[in-house]
Amino acid sequence: MSQSGDMIENVLDSIKHPTDVAKLDADQMKQLAAELRERIISTVSQNGGHLAPSLGVVELTLAMLSVFDPEKDKFIWDVGHQAYAWKLLTGRRDEFSTLRQFNGVSGFPKMSESPYDHFGVGHSSTSISAAAGMAMARDLSGDDHDVIAVIGDGSMTAGLAFEGLNQAGHQGRRLLVILNDNEMSISKNVGALSLFLSRNLSSRWVRRMKRDVETWLKSVPGIGEEMLNYAKRSEHSLKSFFTPGMLFEAFRFNYVGPVDGHDVRNLAKVMEMARKLDEPVLLHVLTKKGKGYEPAEHNPTYFHGVGKFELETGEACKFVDSDSLPSYTEVFGNTLCTLAEKDERIIAITAAMPEGTGVGTFSRRFPDRFVDVGICEQHAVTFAAGLAAQGYRPVVAIYSTFLQRSYDQIVHDVCLQNLPVTFCLDRGGLVGEDGPTHHGSFDLSYLRHIPNLTIIAPKDEAELQDAMKTAINSNGPVAIRYPRGIGSGACLKSEPDSLEIGVGEVLKQGSSVAVVAVGSRVHPALAVANEIENETGKAVTVFNARFVKPLDVDKLVELASTHEKLLLLEENTIAGGFSSAVLEALADRTCLGGVTVKRLGLPDSFVPHGTQKQLRKLVGIDKQSIRNALLELLA
Amino acid sequence: MSQSGDMIENVLDSIKHPTDVAKLDADQMKQLAAELRERIISTVSQNGGHLAPSLGVVELTLAMLSVFDPEKDKFIWDVGHQAYAWKLLTGRRDEFSTLRQFNGVSGFPKMSESPYDHFGVGHSSTSISAAAGMAMARDLSGDDHDVIAVIGDGSMTAGLAFEGLNQAGHQGRRLLVILNDNEMSISKNVGALSLFLSRNLSSRWVRRMKRDVETWLKSVPGIGEEMLNYAKRSEHSLKSFFTPGMLFEAFRFNYVGPVDGHDVRNLAKVMEMARKLDEPVLLHVLTKKGKGYEPAEHNPTYFHGVGKFELETGEACKFVDSDSLPSYTEVFGNTLCTLAEKDERIIAITAAMPEGTGVGTFSRRFPDRFVDVGICEQHAVTFAAGLAAQGYRPVVAIYSTFLQRSYDQIVHDVCLQNLPVTFCLDRGGLVGEDGPTHHGSFDLSYLRHIPNLTIIAPKDEAELQDAMKTAINSNGPVAIRYPRGIGSGACLKSEPDSLEIGVGEVLKQGSSVAVVAVGSRVHPALAVANEIENETGKAVTVFNARFVKPLDVDKLVELASTHEKLLLLEENTIAGGFSSAVLEALADRTCLGGVTVKRLGLPDSFVPHGTQKQLRKLVGIDKQSIRNALLELLA
Repeated sequence: MSQSGDMIENVLDSIKHPTDVAKLDADQMKQLAAELRERIISTVSQNGGHLAPSLGVVELTLAMLSVFDPEKDKFIWDVGHQAYAWKLLTGRRDEFSTLRQFNGVSGFPKMSESPYDHFGVGHSSTSISAAAGMAMARDLSGDDHDVIAVIGDGSMTAGLAFEGLNQAGHQGRRLLVILNDNEMSISKNVGALSLFLSRNLSSRWVRRMKRDVETWLKSVPGIGEEMLNYAKRSEHSLKSFFTPGMLFEAFRFNYVGPVDGHDVRNLAKVMEMARKLDEPVLLHVLTKKGKGYEPAEHNPTYFHGVGKFELETGEACKFVDSDSLPSYTEVFGNTLCTLAEKDERIIAITAAMPEGTGVGTFSRRFPDRFVDVGICEQHAVTFAAGLAAQGYRPVVAIYSTFLQRSYDQIVHDVCLQNLPVTFCLDRGGLVGEDGPTHHGSFDLSYLRHIPNLTIIAPKDEAELQDAMKTAINSNGPVAIRYPRGIGSGACLKSEPDSLEIGVGEVLKQGSSVAVVAVGSRVHPALAVANEIENETGKAVTVFNARFVKPLDVDKLVELASTHEKLLLLEENTIAGGFSSAVLEALADRTCLGGVTVKRLGLPDSFVPHGTQKQLRKLVGIDKQSIRNALLELLA
Repeated sequence: MSQSGDMIENVLDSIKHPTDVAKLDADQMKQLAAELRERIISTVSQNGGHLAPSLGVVELTLAMLSVFDPEKDKFIWDVGHQAYAWKLLTGRRDEFSTLRQFNGVSGFPKMSESPYDHFGVGHSSTSISAAAGMAMARDLSGDDHDVIAVIGDGSMTAGLAFEGLNQAGHQGRRLLVILNDNEMSISKNVGALSLFLSRNLSSRWVRRMKRDVETWLKSVPGIGEEMLNYAKRSEHSLKSFFTPGMLFEAFRFNYVGPVDGHDVRNLAKVMEMARKLDEPVLLHVLTKKGKGYEPAEHNPTYFHGVGKFELETGEACKFVDSDSLPSYTEVFGNTLCTLAEKDERIIAITAAMPEGTGVGTFSRRFPDRFVDVGICEQHAVTFAAGLAAQGYRPVVAIYSTFLQRSYDQIVHDVCLQNLPVTFCLDRGGLVGEDGPTHHGSFDLSYLRHIPNLTIIAPKDEAELQDAMKTAINSNGPVAIRYPRGIGSGACLKSEPDSLEIGVGEVLKQGSSVAVVAVGSRVHPALAVANEIENETGKAVTVFNARFVKPLDVDKLVELASTHEKLLLLEENTIAGGFSSAVLEALADRTCLGGVTVKRLGLPDSFVPHGTQKQLRKLVGIDKQSIRNALLELLA
C-alpha cells in the first residue's frame, strides 16, 4: 500500500483533538467521513444501536466541527441517537467499541461522559428549549459563544419543540437550530410540518419564482412598492411564502436552506454565514438516513435502531433461543388484532412508533381505526380521551418512558373523567442498552397514585393477552405494562380470557415465607422457589399480584397473617411503586405488626446502560438476587 | 314598568331549553346578553370566580347556541373558565348561585354535571386534541354532527395545542376551532403566535391588497397564472399570506376571520358558513375580556379569577383576619427578590402566571433575569435545565397541578442530569373552589420517586423562606411545595437560613404516640397535640418531617422504636406520597414490627370543589379529624 494510502487510512486516528477536524483539507474530510461510517457500521453490527440516524449526519458533524469550537460553543443533539460521529471525534474513539455496553460508551450524549456532551438527551424534542436556556445564560454572562441545536424533522413535530421555537424566536437571541430533515422521524412524518418540508417544489423553480415576482412587484407603481415594503416590514419576506421556511420565519427565525447535508464544504459555508446573523437561525439541512450503507439506505426504518447484524448483508444475526419465542411487542400486536376483529370500538394509537410498539400489523389490517399522531405523546392521550368520550375504546401504545410525557393528560383528561382508555406500556422496567433515558423505571410509581386507574403488570405473554381483553372491556382507564424482549414462552391463547379486576393468583403454596411479585419478576421468583424447594425441601409461597391497582388486598392480608416474612418484588423503582402499595395496604389494615417485609426493585437512582441481564444483576432483581434474598429470609 | 319591559327582563328565565336561544330575535338576544352578564357579575361578586373570561364570550356563546345543536353537536371549552354563560343557558341557571360552592355548580365544564358539558376541562390547551378524537369518532360511527373547540389565544401557545392542530389539519375531518382572541392569555402573550394575531393590519387594507393582487396576478400572462395556481394548489392562498391566518392555513385549517366576537348575528352567519366547509376550520374571533363590566374591562388580569368583590366598584371584599397575613405566594415572591439581590445566578421562570405565582415583583426588579414562557410548562423546565447546565440557578414557579405537564422534563432533563433547578410548587394540596382539575393532590407522589430530587414541604411561610435558600444553594434539583392561601402567621425572616438537607424537627416531645407530619398539616397537628395535652395531660410527640425526600430516616426509626403508634399526616394523596415514603423507610429498616401506623391524607379519588376548609373536613385532614385520630390512638 502506498504511503499516501497509509496516511489517508488514518485520518480518524490522526484526530487528537476535536479542533483538528477544522484543519483537514477536502480530500481528508471525505476520507474521514468514510472512515467514520466504517467505524460506526462495524461497531453497530457488533453491538447494535442507532445506525441509520448516525450515518445520516456524518458530514453535518464534520461541518459543525469545522466551523464551531466544541471547547467553547455548545451543541445539543436532539434525541442524541445520531451522535456516534460526534462521539468518535470528541474523545471517545478509542473506547467506541464498547458502545452501548455495560460500563462502555453510552448510546446517547451524556454530560457525565464527556465535556463535549453539553446536554444529555434521549427523549425527543428537548434541544431547542435547552439551547434557548443556554443562549440566555451566555448573554447574561456576557459571553460570546454559539449555541447549536440539531433536531430531526420528526422531533420537530412534538409540542415541546414548538414551545421552544416560539420562545427562542420571541427572545431573539443568537441561536442556531439545524433542522436535520431526512423526510422521516422514526417512522413517517404526519401533520402540517411535513407539508412545509415537502420537497415537491424544486428549489430552482422557487428561486425563479421569487426573482420574477420581486422584479415584477418593483415594476408596478404604487401597489407593488407597497406590497414589497409590507412583505419586508412584516418580516415575512416573499421568500418565506415560497420556501419551506414559511413556518420558521413565522416564529421569527431566520430561515436558511434547504442545503445538501452531505456536502461538508457548502454546509460549513452556510453555517459561517448563519452564525454572523446574531439572531435565531433555522438551517434546513437535507440528509439521507442510513447514508453510505446500502442496506440502511434501503430500509432506514429497520436500521433506525438495530441489534447485531451481518456486515455484508445487513441481515440480523439469528439467536436460536430467542427467535423461537415471540416478543411481548408481537404478542401485544397480534392480540390487538384478534380483539379488534370482534370489537369495532377498538382504535390503536401510536406516537410515531408503529413497529416499535407492535401496532404495525393492526395499521395494515384496520387502517381506518389506526392513528399515528407523530411524536406527540400528550396529544395521543387527549385525542384518545375524545374518542373514549364518544364510546370508542382507544388503545394507546407508547413505551413506558415516553408515556412520561403524557402524565398530565392521563390524570386530567382520562382518569378524572374515568374514560375507558387502555394504555399499553411496552418497555416497562429495564430496557438494556439504551440506558437511563429509556428505562421504564417509573411507570408503576407515576401511575398508581392516579385515581380511577387500573394497573395490570402481567407475569407473561399469555397474561398480557388476558390483561388486554380485560382492559378493553373495562369501563374505565387501564394501564398494562410489560417488559422489553421475549416472553417466558407461555402458551398463547387464540381467545384471551377476562381477568377478575384486582385479583391475583397463588402460584405456589408454602409457609413461613411468601414472595409477592408482579410482572417480569413473577416467573423468576417461581423458578427460584421451586429450586429452593428441590434443594432444601422448604416450600415458599409465590403470589402473582397481577394487579398493581387495585391490589388484591384481602389476599395480601391473608398472606401477611399466615407468613412470617414477605418478599416483595418488582421491576420498577423501589420508591412509590408496587411494594410501596403493598406496604400501604397492609399498614392500613394494621397487618404489618407480625410480618417482616423485604423489598426488591430498581434502586432510587438512575440505572446505567448494559444488557438487561447485566442490569438486573447489578440492581439486584435477577434470579440469583431473588434466591439470595429468599435463602436469607428462610434462614 | 311597562309590559314590554317585563318581558324583556325575563329572557334568560324564559329559556327552558338550550335550543330556545336560536329562536330569539335580535333585541331579545341583546337583552339576553345583558341579563347573562348581570347574572354572571352578581354571582361572581358573591362567590368569586373567573369573571373576565366569561364576560368576554357571552355573545360567542349565544351565537354558538343559535347555530349548533347542543343535543347533538359537541362543544369543548378550552380551560373552561369562560363557560358561565354556557352553564346558565344549558340547564344550570337555577342553581347558578351555587357556582364554585361545595356541592354546587362547578366552575368548569364537567361531564358528570351535565350532558351539555361534552368534555371536562380545567388545564389549558386540551380542546383541539379532544375535538379531533371526537371528530374521528363521529366519522367512524357515520354520524354527522359538528364538533366545536373554543380556545383562547393564550391556550394556543401550548405545545399540546400545536400537536392537536397539526394532527387535526392532517386528518382533515370536519372540525371547527374557534380561536377566542382577547389579546392575552391569563397574563400577556409571548412568542410567535401573538405576532400572527397582531391587529396591526387593518382588515380593510388586507382586503384591498388581496383583491388587487389577485386581479393583477390573473392579468399577467404565464407567470401570474402559474403563481395563482400554485397558491391555490398548495392550499396557501394569497389570503393566508396577508392575514393572521397564515399559521393556521399552514396547518391545513381553513382560516376565517378575524370576526367581531360581540356581534351575535354576524358571528352566527360566519359559523353557518364555516360548518358547510366540511373540513377543519379555524374561526378567529376578537373579543374583549371583561366585556360589559367596566372594572373588569379596565383590569382584565385582576378580574381573570377573583374572590368576592363589591359590585359597584369592583373592589375586593376585605377579610380582616386574612388580609393581615401574607399569602405563601407573597412570601415566595418577596423572598425570591431578597435572595436574588445577593445571587446573580437566580433566574425566575413562570408559565404565563407571573402574578398568580408571585414573581410579579421579581419581574419588575430583575427584568433581565425573568422569563415568562407562556403556557408552556414543558419548555419552562427544559429551558431551566439549559440555564442550570451553564451555571445559573433557575427557579421555576408553577402551580402544583400545572407542573404535572412537565413530569417527563423533570425526570429526563433535570433530575437525570442532577441539575440545580428549583421548582416552587404553589397550590400544593387542596386549592378549594377551582376543584379537582386544580387541586395539587399528587405532587409528592409524582415527584418523590424521581432520583436525585430533594423535596421540601415547609410547615409555614418562614420555613418556606429557609427552604428557598436551601434549594438555591443546593447543587441538585429541589422541589418546594406549599399550599394555596395565607400562612400561619409565622415570623418572617429578613435573612433566610439554610436547612440541613434531610433533617426534620421535633416540635413537641411526648410518648406513646407520635405525629409525623409534613407541610400544611404540621401546625394543625401541633395545635391539636397541645389541646389534647391541656385536656388530658397526655403528651403526643409532633415531628415536622420537612423533607419528603430525603427523609430523616434515623429520626423516623427512633420515633418508631420509642413510640407505640405513629400518625402520618400529609395534604397529598395517600397513595405513593409522604406517608408511603415513611412506610418504605421503616420497612427497609425493619422497624414496622412494633408500631401501629395510621395514615391521614387525601383519598385515592378525585376531590370535588368547595372551600379549602370544607374539603379538608370532607377528606378527613382538618384539625377535628386529626384530633379524632389522635384520641383514638391514645385510647
